[in-house]
Amino acid sequence: MNEQIVLSEHIRNIPDFPKPGILFRDITTLLAEPEVFQETIDRFVDQLAGKGVDTVLAAEARGFIFATPIALALKARFIPIRKPGKLPFDTHSFHYELEYGTDSLEMHIDAITEENTVVLVDDLLATGGTMEACIRMVEKEGAKIAGCAFLIELDDLQGRKKLEPYDVISLVHY
Amino acid sequence: MNEQIVLSEHIRNIPDFPKPGILFRDITTLLAEPEVFQETIDRFVDQLAGKGVDTVLAAEARGFIFATPIALALKARFIPIRKPGKLPFDTHSFHYELEYGTDSLEMHIDAITEENTVVLVDDLLATGGTMEACIRMVEKEGAKIAGCAFLIELDDLQGRKKLEPYDVISLVHY
Repeated sequence: MNEQIVLSEHIRNIPDFPKPGILFRDITTLLAEPEVFQETIDRFVDQLAGKGVDTVLAAEARGFIFATPIALALKARFIPIRKPGKLPFDTHSFHYELEYGTDSLEMHIDAITEENTVVLVDDLLATGGTMEACIRMVEKEGAKIAGCAFLIELDDLQGRKKLEPYDVISLVHY
Repeated sequence: MNEQIVLSEHIRNIPDFPKPGILFRDITTLLAEPEVFQETIDRFVDQLAGKGVDTVLAAEARGFIFATPIALALKARFIPIRKPGKLPFDTHSFHYELEYGTDSLEMHIDAITEENTVVLVDDLLATGGTMEACIRMVEKEGAKIAGCAFLIELDDLQGRKKLEPYDVISLVHY
């Protein structure tokens, strides 16, 4: 690892996106710097190693960006969670609440079992609604949850509380 | 690399998805086998190394799954192409034809320059419409294209012809 890299210096701030008053944290600048992207993955793996993780789970699309390199580094299975109608095999469907209305996601029915130890990965922890829904689904399958890992956590939104009692790893806090 | 792994043995065939008569190639089984997923990435990297690639570009969502590990292995930049309204900075928008109707994608305006050498990655080469649209956009920016890389190519659909004169690497043919 390279302690001199400050990840937040490689995340671009975009005012008023997706709507006025929101300061959006744009990770595409970090992804376009190979050394910084690799350092990001290394820091995730450093914190997740030794937890017995055999399965890395992420919801499309930005979750995939970090989850697959983490899964490969941990020699763990990668399980994609997708929007309805995208996964071809039989699925479990689960619904969750958004700021306005609800949304739903799907996971293959044979994706995880009670034998698995899962880490859930996403780029951003905001209110935590999507991640909480993923957790409920993993719990339903009886799998063990080693924790949730995010590149960015927006501390003021207190999403971390929704994910209790699980460990939350975030590399950058705002 | 492990020559004994036959990638197609780890891809599941799903009849009649997404509609009757279509045999869908389900890659989630391959992704859930760490050794096979790693072998897949190793084979991509083996074929792409030495081409001077400094940028790996992929459209959401499945393209991200392979593109980020490839980018990290090549020490190349990762550039996401996304559905409209998802990228926060100024974007180039481009439209392409589907079987019925059209669709569009976006790329950040500062994502690539004429200095870059780009490989475009996706899980599947079918008719090649989406990939062709991505190529046109990369050409417009003046970047060099080192080729396109796919896990699966459906030979009968002749998508490869649409991508001429560029090199096409596919690891599994049906």
